[in-house]
Amino acid sequence: MEGDAVKDLGVHTTNGANIPSCCLKARAFPIDPAVEANCHPTVVSGWFSDKAAKKMYFNNPMWPGEAHSLEVEKILFKEKSEYQEVLVFESTSYGKVLVLDGILQLTEKDECAYQEMIAHLPLCSIESPKKVLVLGGGDGGVLREVSRHSSVESIDICEIDKMVIDVSKKFFPELALGFEDPRVHLHVGDAVEFIRNTPPGKYDAIIVDSSDPVGPALELVEKPFFEMLARALRPGGVLCNMAESMWLHTHLIQDMINVCREIFKGSVHYAWTSVPTYPSGVIGFILCSTDGPTVDFKIPINPIEKVEGALEHRRELKFYNSQLQILCRKCCQAFQKYIDMV
Amino acid sequence: MEGDAVKDLGVHTTNGANIPSCCLKARAFPIDPAVEANCHPTVVSGWFSDKAAKKMYFNNPMWPGEAHSLEVEKILFKEKSEYQEVLVFESTSYGKVLVLDGILQLTEKDECAYQEMIAHLPLCSIESPKKVLVLGGGDGGVLREVSRHSSVESIDICEIDKMVIDVSKKFFPELALGFEDPRVHLHVGDAVEFIRNTPPGKYDAIIVDSSDPVGPALELVEKPFFEMLARALRPGGVLCNMAESMWLHTHLIQDMINVCREIFKGSVHYAWTSVPTYPSGVIGFILCSTDGPTVDFKIPINPIEKVEGALEHRRELKFYNSQLQILCRKCCQAFQKYIDMV
Repeated sequence: MEGDAVKDLGVHTTNGANIPSCCLKARAFPIDPAVEANCHPTVVSGWFSDKAAKKMYFNNPMWPGEAHSLEVEKILFKEKSEYQEVLVFESTSYGKVLVLDGILQLTEKDECAYQEMIAHLPLCSIESPKKVLVLGGGDGGVLREVSRHSSVESIDICEIDKMVIDVSKKFFPELALGFEDPRVHLHVGDAVEFIRNTPPGKYDAIIVDSSDPVGPALELVEKPFFEMLARALRPGGVLCNMAESMWLHTHLIQDMINVCREIFKGSVHYAWTSVPTYPSGVIGFILCSTDGPTVDFKIPINPIEKVEGALEHRRELKFYNSQLQILCRKCCQAFQKYIDMV
Repeated sequence: MEGDAVKDLGVHTTNGANIPSCCLKARAFPIDPAVEANCHPTVVSGWFSDKAAKKMYFNNPMWPGEAHSLEVEKILFKEKSEYQEVLVFESTSYGKVLVLDGILQLTEKDECAYQEMIAHLPLCSIESPKKVLVLGGGDGGVLREVSRHSSVESIDICEIDKMVIDVSKKFFPELALGFEDPRVHLHVGDAVEFIRNTPPGKYDAIIVDSSDPVGPALELVEKPFFEMLARALRPGGVLCNMAESMWLHTHLIQDMINVCREIFKGSVHYAWTSVPTYPSGVIGFILCSTDGPTVDFKIPINPIEKVEGALEHRRELKFYNSQLQILCRKCCQAFQKYIDMV
């Protein structure tokens, strides 16, 4: 859920009117001045300041009708980059928190679940991944996880917002250490342009660690983007793309799955995990493979436990394991009805 | 997470000072006048009223440092019973919501996950369950799920607060329909007294659908309560007890597991599921069996899919399935380190 790497797909898609109401994420500040204007006087720039109790809360507007608030111990950083408002604060219960344009991106306490799953779900599903691309992911957390794989020879990352990288290096050293790996090649720029200029078949795996596919990033669920991703993968290469909550966005997920099934001739799957500070407490992933050697995302053929040094590389693995991959792919009765998730 | 069925264990245990800070659930109203006094003027009785935007929010104080808010469409009921404050409102995004003493108990949108899991995890783990006891569960949701099992001959329920039952019948017919089953025998009273007077070995399965085991219900993690539960079960009988969040309460869960391992000579397991409106978006269950025929909670030997008429009984099964039972028992790397969850 990082950066705003994918800004312009060169396709005419983004239209607020087309976003279903359940997906219309409230953007607190400074994207929508109307939201700001409607805020209660105590909610300042997405912050709920309880002056009577001398407590301050970061009020994360998630989806219409609900919000999650974290108590703020101290604001550490607040600045506007070329692309977005970047905010870092120390919370009382989830460690340091990164917020972009008013939307919570990660907390120190639960980032492990997201970063480990989005990286190892694809990388453990193919043998000896060598060339990996990360789109977005400017905090470095996904890089940290990808670099656990000793087979990997090069990791390209394309992040549009340098401020996110700098802020992560300053405030989130446990994530930014991902940049220290000599195999990492950083490209600061637009992810769509980057992927458009990528030679066909270059990568074994691509991980899209982007903003939510609503509002400005709605293009992420559009066909042209997935077509470019598929083209950049080798036969039997894998894509892992952040794919929202099964509790809140069944139709959006179904749309993504349908689009991916048209484009990816290998397999297309959905998986999810628990992340307390994300909307509805879960986050999903869409996993796809291109035509070529068969990829079965249900069974990690490259189990992390057998990758030399992987469990302790730079930082111990905290969340992911092979069993979790097998199980997280399963979904519940309800969602199976709405989404054909096989 | 229902009722306050377990009020008095007859043991000297509850002592606020002993509750770890991460477990100290803020009770909004009217339990702790200090909380009320500290509230911002716009937070009235646990409600955040955003007058500028003419919106009202139910501000659910969960654990120190965070809160989850639901937008209120209409307050449907608010009254003080002999035991607690009972509140029902229509939310804009999760349907009708039941709140006891300021703590969210269930929403129409996600109650299926909790009710189905707490009932079918134990009942699908033994062959032909016949006698079942539910402690708490005054909304009727667990009864609805237990009654899917055609082998069941009698379902005793002991709920202390009649107002919860009446309110459920009025506002939550999809849950209260559980009371309509002729096998159900309702006992309005104290659960501890009920279990103390239960003949040994009476039940095949006991489901404890109680308040959170913090504050007044801290006794729930105490040995005497579990001893009485074990005594009331037949050899190889099963218990399923609500057991909080693995993200927030590892030590509490570990304590429960340790206590249960001392008492239950069969097997003791932990399982969890996603419930968006509960703290950290998950809820856990502790599963125990008494000495006798072996119970393996990992594999449902009485799969719901094979129980005659179970999937459509009164209301379609929405969440649970056999695969989910297998997977939900697994836990992630992080929690396995802190909690021996096997």
